[in-house]
Amino acid sequence: MTSYVEDKLHNYKEKHKDRARLLIHCPDQPGIISRVSDFLYTYGANIVASHQYSTDPEGGEFFIRIEFDCPGLETKFSQIEADFQPVAADFQMNWKMAAVSELKNVAIFVSKQPHCLLELLWEWQSGDLMANLALVISNHEDTREMVESLGIPFYHVPSNKEIRKEAEQRHKELLEEYEVDLIVLARYMQILTPEFVESYRNRIINIHHSFLPAFVGARPYERAYERGVKMIGATSHYVTNDLDEGPIIEQDIGRVDHRDHAEDMKKIGQTIERSVLARAVKWHLADRILVHQNKTIVFS
Amino acid sequence: MTSYVEDKLHNYKEKHKDRARLLIHCPDQPGIISRVSDFLYTYGANIVASHQYSTDPEGGEFFIRIEFDCPGLETKFSQIEADFQPVAADFQMNWKMAAVSELKNVAIFVSKQPHCLLELLWEWQSGDLMANLALVISNHEDTREMVESLGIPFYHVPSNKEIRKEAEQRHKELLEEYEVDLIVLARYMQILTPEFVESYRNRIINIHHSFLPAFVGARPYERAYERGVKMIGATSHYVTNDLDEGPIIEQDIGRVDHRDHAEDMKKIGQTIERSVLARAVKWHLADRILVHQNKTIVFS
Amino acid sequence: MTSYVEDKLHNYKEKHKDRARLLIHCPDQPGIISRVSDFLYTYGANIVASHQYSTDPEGGEFFIRIEFDCPGLETKFSQIEADFQPVAADFQMNWKMAAVSELKNVAIFVSKQPHCLLELLWEWQSGDLMANLALVISNHEDTREMVESLGIPFYHVPSNKEIRKEAEQRHKELLEEYEVDLIVLARYMQILTPEFVESYRNRIINIHHSFLPAFVGARPYERAYERGVKMIGATSHYVTNDLDEGPIIEQDIGRVDHRDHAEDMKKIGQTIERSVLARAVKWHLADRILVHQNKTIVFS
Amino acid sequence: MTSYVEDKLHNYKEKHKDRARLLIHCPDQPGIISRVSDFLYTYGANIVASHQYSTDPEGGEFFIRIEFDCPGLETKFSQIEADFQPVAADFQMNWKMAAVSELKNVAIFVSKQPHCLLELLWEWQSGDLMANLALVISNHEDTREMVESLGIPFYHVPSNKEIRKEAEQRHKELLEEYEVDLIVLARYMQILTPEFVESYRNRIINIHHSFLPAFVGARPYERAYERGVKMIGATSHYVTNDLDEGPIIEQDIGRVDHRDHAEDMKKIGQTIERSVLARAVKWHLADRILVHQNKTIVFS
Repeated sequence: MTSYVEDKLHNYKEKHKDRARLLIHCPDQPGIISRVSDFLYTYGANIVASHQYSTDPEGGEFFIRIEFDCPGLETKFSQIEADFQPVAADFQMNWKMAAVSELKNVAIFVSKQPHCLLELLWEWQSGDLMANLALVISNHEDTREMVESLGIPFYHVPSNKEIRKEAEQRHKELLEEYEVDLIVLARYMQILTPEFVESYRNRIINIHHSFLPAFVGARPYERAYERGVKMIGATSHYVTNDLDEGPIIEQDIGRVDHRDHAEDMKKIGQTIERSVLARAVKWHLADRILVHQNKTIVFS
Repeated sequence: MTSYVEDKLHNYKEKHKDRARLLIHCPDQPGIISRVSDFLYTYGANIVASHQYSTDPEGGEFFIRIEFDCPGLETKFSQIEADFQPVAADFQMNWKMAAVSELKNVAIFVSKQPHCLLELLWEWQSGDLMANLALVISNHEDTREMVESLGIPFYHVPSNKEIRKEAEQRHKELLEEYEVDLIVLARYMQILTPEFVESYRNRIINIHHSFLPAFVGARPYERAYERGVKMIGATSHYVTNDLDEGPIIEQDIGRVDHRDHAEDMKKIGQTIERSVLARAVKWHLADRILVHQNKTIVFS
Repeated sequence: MTSYVEDKLHNYKEKHKDRARLLIHCPDQPGIISRVSDFLYTYGANIVASHQYSTDPEGGEFFIRIEFDCPGLETKFSQIEADFQPVAADFQMNWKMAAVSELKNVAIFVSKQPHCLLELLWEWQSGDLMANLALVISNHEDTREMVESLGIPFYHVPSNKEIRKEAEQRHKELLEEYEVDLIVLARYMQILTPEFVESYRNRIINIHHSFLPAFVGARPYERAYERGVKMIGATSHYVTNDLDEGPIIEQDIGRVDHRDHAEDMKKIGQTIERSVLARAVKWHLADRILVHQNKTIVFS
Repeated sequence: MTSYVEDKLHNYKEKHKDRARLLIHCPDQPGIISRVSDFLYTYGANIVASHQYSTDPEGGEFFIRIEFDCPGLETKFSQIEADFQPVAADFQMNWKMAAVSELKNVAIFVSKQPHCLLELLWEWQSGDLMANLALVISNHEDTREMVESLGIPFYHVPSNKEIRKEAEQRHKELLEEYEVDLIVLARYMQILTPEFVESYRNRIINIHHSFLPAFVGARPYERAYERGVKMIGATSHYVTNDLDEGPIIEQDIGRVDHRDHAEDMKKIGQTIERSVLARAVKWHLADRILVHQNKTIVFS
């Protein structure tokens, strides 16, 4: 199985070896696109997709995502990135340039429930999740076998209130060792400390098992059942230090009816959780998401 | 237009003159269906649809909705209803029998925004809302013309905090005069008193412009925008004295994205509100809804 | 993993040891429900759910699905079934009584693409597919490992036009050996002979990768791409001898846009195929489906 | 009502008096965006939204939609449009520049069924359909009143096989008189001649009451019922001379079940038709649609 996935990832990188993405956020003003596209043109780059959005023509915010092909990108990338800095400075840009063939390193955190982890593993095996699944960290042993059978390192790091500091210390070591770019909390039931969250700002994606802001906090399915709602949902978001209050990336819902108990809702909800989390992760990996004022701009 | 609708309603009543519905809620025990179906059979009734649901086989609650055809129902209905009382007593039933040709009298309350009212009027004209639209009551004059143009009486009853009592007194007179069975709050922006709500228990349907329990209370679209949600919704529910906490009948949602401001969300939301309210009203009119412990059982 | 699933199945059977289902289709007339419910009452059975549907009150068809609990069912089931025969005869019923604890034996046929097989295996492991997954038959070796790792027998039976007869002979032997009740074609790319189909009438479920009747036949995603549709779908149906013309059980769709090539549509479609097939299989296993005039009645 | 709509349209035009849209389709090559954005920058224009899509980086097709604000657009628009011609020529562009405040003139064709017409009128009254509803043409008198009550001219032009030529002659006169930009067939049940279609190429939008390519042609709901589908749909498309084969703009579906007869499907379908047609019309009015090889690129 592993070599099968390796082949898929290799082909993907080969196919996109000349492709890069540029994400920009800056104060709006005339001439930004002109300047950026002139810049790329001088490197022989061809813009193959671009999406731009401004909050307001007068004194607003400017957001753009550009995909471009540049022959020989591999050898030029660092130079292009360096050369772009004065352009970025002129417009006070927050920006990021990423070579598509540089796959991001992903760590998945999971507790006992495996459904979200399994969905990500499934997408990855199918060649739909273009990333290095660097490692899986869990406070339980339950999912070790399914992870290791795919050749992915699995680390059991016990964690609870009492040993949170020690656990996070171990997390940090592992994340540094594997040079992790993105952390996915695939139903990881432990709280992270503010320091940890801050050091991975907008790089930790969580799945909450309700349609936020309904049922913030614990036991959302039980509370949904008690309230008698006719739909349940799931929400993926970047983690901040306000519980379930981070920037929402994606949401979806499913129908339930009076016959569905909390346990049925949980099962229906798991299907929703799986797809909502997978979409968010894929969008992040494809550099489609910008965060601004606790909201996300998702370029489709 | 009026005679056109009258024809539709007349044809519907004629077609269903032998049909009745029986809704039952009682403690579960063996033999209920046997007893009820035997009872109906002795009147030559043919059960054309039935849906039954029990919360739990052991010591739970039993709910059933039966549609039956009984030749000559018109002359027998009162007798059947009377004869059913001892059966109902044996099983401690909460129950209701309704002749389909006895259309319910409906009052619509509306403030300034006409979209929900218009949807109901449109469904009614199309022959999809089988009811007598007895009257429309509003605290504004805005919708008078569209209502009266369809031959429906329109009453302007000013209402606000200061004159709530007087307004409700007038409401009650009108509702009694028109023998109203169901009140639909089609974006009626005034609070009703507990006395009023109690006297129309489970007979007042409201539309709330959010996916409850998210954004209980005022300005839900503005708050949805501020939170950065990716979906907005609407909820129809029976009115109780706890704001936006009554039994939910139906919910639905629609997608929004980062480009949608509160005003855009409001427009997208109005389409959802229209259909969610119309479905709830049609289900109530078709005797499909039972309320139990602040939840609805909706027989599809 | 296997013992984990065995535990789930065992618990399910234990929990439902007194429960049975009764499916009936007969000409409509007054008194059917009365007679059937009287019959069940004499055995001390409690009806816990029932859904009835008639095509037309006058001279139509009557369909009902009943779930009932009968203490000591295990020892009484055969007798109840036998005793029901004269009742059934009086009303010319097509009928079926099934003890819920008697799990159905299921054979899955698959070719190379594993996504539908994997979904079924996943649902089964999660305790959401209540069946004995008796065996998997494939004309390729690709999925052997994932099947055998769950302790399910895997048989590689090569098949193509030239050796269809021999292959089907082998299929029949295996299906008889494992006493198979239901065959699921989880993207099995071989044609079945009319004799084979006839001997498993309404017991073979196929997934077609289009929203039937659009794109009957081969290469539906390619043709969907060429036509420029904005949505693609999947359809599960019972297999008949008219290609893709059998009774439809379930359908669903997903959105695509101008950027999606046939290959993208295929990926989006696979997610739809997975859930549409799984729903159909679960409904069949729960005895929710009746077939009448090449259509299905699905009791929800 | 009329003055109410006039106010809405007036405010919209005033608010967007400096805004224009530029739609381009040409062979892909590096430098297009650079050249176009430089061009706009020289006029002091600020690009407020842009979406670009290329079919393939190597030798493919390039599509872009740009919205820009240019102070004093009203007086400069013709000049900008003229000056853009050499740029367009250099890249062999098919292109269109449109001032947002220049509302398009729309003619609606309708036969007897009013639901699609009513939806468009409703959207227009609500200020969601930014166009001049110039006139309504019908081969029946049924909808005259609802149209004229809004101050929109209504023309009854009888049409059938025998008098098609005369009818189309009258249509052409009216369309020229009102300088119509877009024709919407809101359930207009007459065939148009190839000459007529050609003269409004990609400017006639039709709603077909099925999920194309399923049920091409007449009586789709009856055929959907006969086939036993579990979902029905609607499709809006540009009209070509191949029946129901024009470029698809939008599709949507809704669920039905075994209880729904053709007549029920028709009612459920009408709701879908309404929204699918309205979306297509709004996208066309907002210059969001490009047609290429019998498919649409819809910029969201």
